[in-house]
Amino acid sequence: MDPNLALFANDAFYIAFENADFEAMAELWARDQVITCMHPGWPALVGREAVLDSWERILGNQSGDPVVAFNARAVIIDRLVNVICYERIAGQTLVATNLFAMEAGQLRLVHHQAGPCAEPPEPEPRSVQ
Amino acid sequence: MDPNLALFANDAFYIAFENADFEAMAELWARDQVITCMHPGWPALVGREAVLDSWERILGNQSGDPVVAFNARAVIIDRLVNVICYERIAGQTLVATNLFAMEAGQLRLVHHQAGPCAEPPEPEPRSVQ
Repeated sequence: MDPNLALFANDAFYIAFENADFEAMAELWARDQVITCMHPGWPALVGREAVLDSWERILGNQSGDPVVAFNARAVIIDRLVNVICYERIAGQTLVATNLFAMEAGQLRLVHHQAGPCAEPPEPEPRSVQ
Repeated sequence: MDPNLALFANDAFYIAFENADFEAMAELWARDQVITCMHPGWPALVGREAVLDSWERILGNQSGDPVVAFNARAVIIDRLVNVICYERIAGQTLVATNLFAMEAGQLRLVHHQAGPCAEPPEPEPRSVQ
């Protein structure tokens, strides 16, 4: 497993978010696993229908503001990759978990959580672990 | 993999938290994986030393308030188990990710994130998926 693949998949997630591209977003999430998602402040969403409905709603309200992910770090856990990073969206900085599993030869999102981060670090070059 | 094992491990995590039992907490976290932890509002912590230092600090300040986890749900992802749940601590309700991997025959924590939840659900009986 090349952790860079997970960083690319993580980039694709934030590009889909910024571009309010629901089809790309739907493509990124796993189909063969029970997926889960925790948007900031929201209760946990479980299952593809609930998770994608939430993204359709969020992307429908995307104001065109940039969505910037920084300090993404790919941590391999068994056969999964956990990408932890910071998100800057609409003046807020969040810290995020993006967990990817290999499915049909592609890394696909199985879990996302984002929550507020009071003292985020300065943006740094990428690192892989 | 019996998902109930993950729910028991999740219970053990919150019992160690409530009891401010640092030894039990240290025991629960994986040794052979790069562990990561995101406390509410904090930046991401990476590696056993940083994660356990943070817990030593947090448990040292544990006021004896109850730590209640509810609506825990174990979601199997490949060979890992992701337990999603809510935490009630010091009057605040958080939503949490607790990711467990099998290590030396035990489920051990590899990643934790907790963040505020504005409208948590009512507590319900346990479910496994």
